[in-house]
Amino acid sequence: MHSLAEKIQQQDMRALARAISLIENDDPEKLDLMSDIFSIQKKAHHIGITGSPGAGKSSLINRLLTYLRGKGLTVAVIAVDPTSPFSGGSLLGDRTRMNQHFLDPGIFIRSMATRGSLGGLARATKDAIRVCDAYGFDIILVETVGVGQSELDVMKVVDTTGLVLTPNSGDVLQIFKAGIMEIADLFIINKADLPGVVRLKATLEEYMMIAQPKGWSPLIVKTISTENKGMEELWKGIEQHKSYLFETRQGEERRLKQLELEVYELIREEIWRDVERRVQSDQSKVEQLRDPEADPYQLAREWYGVWKGDS
Amino acid sequence: MHSLAEKIQQQDMRALARAISLIENDDPEKLDLMSDIFSIQKKAHHIGITGSPGAGKSSLINRLLTYLRGKGLTVAVIAVDPTSPFSGGSLLGDRTRMNQHFLDPGIFIRSMATRGSLGGLARATKDAIRVCDAYGFDIILVETVGVGQSELDVMKVVDTTGLVLTPNSGDVLQIFKAGIMEIADLFIINKADLPGVVRLKATLEEYMMIAQPKGWSPLIVKTISTENKGMEELWKGIEQHKSYLFETRQGEERRLKQLELEVYELIREEIWRDVERRVQSDQSKVEQLRDPEADPYQLAREWYGVWKGDS
Repeated sequence: MHSLAEKIQQQDMRALARAISLIENDDPEKLDLMSDIFSIQKKAHHIGITGSPGAGKSSLINRLLTYLRGKGLTVAVIAVDPTSPFSGGSLLGDRTRMNQHFLDPGIFIRSMATRGSLGGLARATKDAIRVCDAYGFDIILVETVGVGQSELDVMKVVDTTGLVLTPNSGDVLQIFKAGIMEIADLFIINKADLPGVVRLKATLEEYMMIAQPKGWSPLIVKTISTENKGMEELWKGIEQHKSYLFETRQGEERRLKQLELEVYELIREEIWRDVERRVQSDQSKVEQLRDPEADPYQLAREWYGVWKGDS
Repeated sequence: MHSLAEKIQQQDMRALARAISLIENDDPEKLDLMSDIFSIQKKAHHIGITGSPGAGKSSLINRLLTYLRGKGLTVAVIAVDPTSPFSGGSLLGDRTRMNQHFLDPGIFIRSMATRGSLGGLARATKDAIRVCDAYGFDIILVETVGVGQSELDVMKVVDTTGLVLTPNSGDVLQIFKAGIMEIADLFIINKADLPGVVRLKATLEEYMMIAQPKGWSPLIVKTISTENKGMEELWKGIEQHKSYLFETRQGEERRLKQLELEVYELIREEIWRDVERRVQSDQSKVEQLRDPEADPYQLAREWYGVWKGDS
């Protein structure tokens, strides 16, 4: 067994952090490590929290952490950040609110960025969840920053997805357009002390009437994270969905489907790594890439053909 | 030469529409067609218009179309839509405003969705732009629906990007977080009759003071699309950026950089297609995929090794 996998099983938090860095950087050791991590027994419930910036996700998660710790549960938080492709920086300002939890050994907080991971953010997040699960956390919380396509992909790797909405924010249309409504297992109306809650709830109920979800019908819960209200209701909702997944075997099916997709993704990552290395190590190919007259469609076909053993 | 490419060169609009469908559906013929399209001489300026839903992009583009037609220019509009992965539908409601232009032979309007395109929306958009360019349009306008990561990627394939903002919308923070500010060549303050214009302009100027863009300094233009105001100013701004790109050879460099990335993207697409086909054509592999105990990392490594000729 990979030494990091062993240490993670022994609840070495530094090993956990190192393993996630290895995943983020697409380290060549990754497949070996993850294969060993896969073999470790796991038990965690994987929860995603998504919603527009400004919906109060971080502060909500902060309160939920305190609530869960009060119940004696251990929690890993993975904050998924779309990193600007230019500056390379991420805006984790509001995450400092979670600072109080950093010293608690029952809590692990880590942010992940797109940079470096060939398989994309969802792939890296899935691996990070698995590593945290192997460590032994009871709950893995995945938080996203926005509500775009990458967030949607990320939410597909968790068991239960909570969508945080605020009254009168005008978020609903954008969220609807991005297809996020359809993946929500819970609608969390945060800042539920603001006017407009009744209307937002009505909009959500109307949406469900139209969408007619098969199977699970998303719950609507209200929270006021600034006043620490609604955490119990929120947790009950999450637990209810967990039971549903277990009783209907939907959870098992969901994870199996994910496993299947993972194999494809991993193979593609390997081939991709290989192709890129081959191009970069061949000076004539690198020069062709810099020729403005070179037909990219032709080059792609030729080079991949050589790799496959055509020619 | 591919028969569609020939017809497109002869300005057959039905052939143009068919070619774009072929791109969207990742038709096996795509590489051949696009390789021929690549060889056709082109001249269009590629302009992206992005911004939050509700910023009035569609109505702005509608006015801009009328303005450009008045100058005798032909225009292709590609409306990029994040399609829900579940319903498959896209919400093109507000695009009906453009209906008046549908009968004008100097205008082509087409929406594109994520569905089917392996290389992602940006890749498909790039191909669609190239096909429209080969047809002979003077201007290619690419409109996005939201301001997330996919929109950011789409904007990287155009020459000039206009970011539509509205006063008091609170969009700026979200746009800033998504890294969209950094790709804007023009800030378009739409609905410039609303209060808050001065403040928005000050915020943008402050942003530029902090960001200190090298080379091109984004212009700020004001429009009121409902009153058809500011189109000339907007167009002058776009033309000014175009001249900048030409004079500094930045445009050439930008397109060359794009070409280089394209080769990699196209190879990735080929890999993607190939892997799935190989697995699906092998019954024992399909069965292993459905085994919940099967280690995906192990399977990926094994199967990849066999294809590379290891074993």
